[in-house]
Amino acid sequence: NHVLVLGYGDLTEPILEELLDDAIPFLVVTEDAEKVRHLGERGVDAFAADPSDDEPLHRAKISEARAVVVATNDDAQDALTILTARELNPDVRIVAAATNRENVEKLRRAGADSVISPATIGGHLLAESALGDDDTERIADELAGDGGDDRDDR
Amino acid sequence: NHVLVLGYGDLTEPILEELLDDAIPFLVVTEDAEKVRHLGERGVDAFAADPSDDEPLHRAKISEARAVVVATNDDAQDALTILTARELNPDVRIVAAATNRENVEKLRRAGADSVISPATIGGHLLAESALGDDDTERIADELAGDGGDDRDDR
Ligand SMILES: [Ca+2]
Ligand SMILES: [Ca+2]
Repeated sequence: NHVLVLGYGDLTEPILEELLDDAIPFLVVTEDAEKVRHLGERGVDAFAADPSDDEPLHRAKISEARAVVVATNDDAQDALTILTARELNPDVRIVAAATNRENVEKLRRAGADSVISPATIGGHLLAESALGDDDTERIADELAGDGGDDRDDR
Repeated sequence: NHVLVLGYGDLTEPILEELLDDAIPFLVVTEDAEKVRHLGERGVDAFAADPSDDEPLHRAKISEARAVVVATNDDAQDALTILTARELNPDVRIVAAATNRENVEKLRRAGADSVISPATIGGHLLAESALGDDDTERIADELAGDGGDDRDDR
């Protein structure tokens, strides 16, 4: 009942923080041996392998996983990883982030249940913030996980 | 009373879409001459120059601007652009996006009024989505500007 975090990108550390905060067991699989070493030093379960290959996902017990998170900065690699994960576990929940927003639908077709575009969300929030929409800033703060607790004007 | 969009990155197109949707006048300044040409073909006001230099920002009438949006994929360049913009117009609203979340505070200190971290927001949403929090998915849809209109269960 663990979460598999496949690959390592800009979103990975915020994701790991959330999972650690919620005390959710998880395992990171990335080709980046240096990242694996750093994660290991912090006591985070991780091993170095290509997460779009079958063997590492078997080894990571994908058949027993609660969810799979795919969010590197390389959408082509993400697509391949999603295809592998979906093939090995037709029922697991797979979520992904498209670095290029034009790839949202492709990652969905590859087998992800839910795909977000951080650039689209960020661009929207930034435009609203530029125009002085304080409500959007508050939402961004809440989504970022800081602030919000002391405000009950929702 | 226009918005200045300084630099061009992954967030820029979503930002331009928002401004076009809201019929807000804006001008893009980026060193990327190819992007300027493409924007021009679409009828978008843009010129090629380094937005961290004084002259282009004078030329872009920063003293009359309603807001400044700084969101390239290069946070160092963003910091320099913010410092220039703030120097030339102490009162204009400046919003920025930190590509590396560790730079949020630095961009604030450079003079931005509001700084978001799309990676932090995206990572938070993705982790919540992995754990099956449908409410967060709905928020992401709304923030991304699609869906949401037909749902009134907020
Ligand atoms: Ca991606
Ligand atoms: Ca940036």
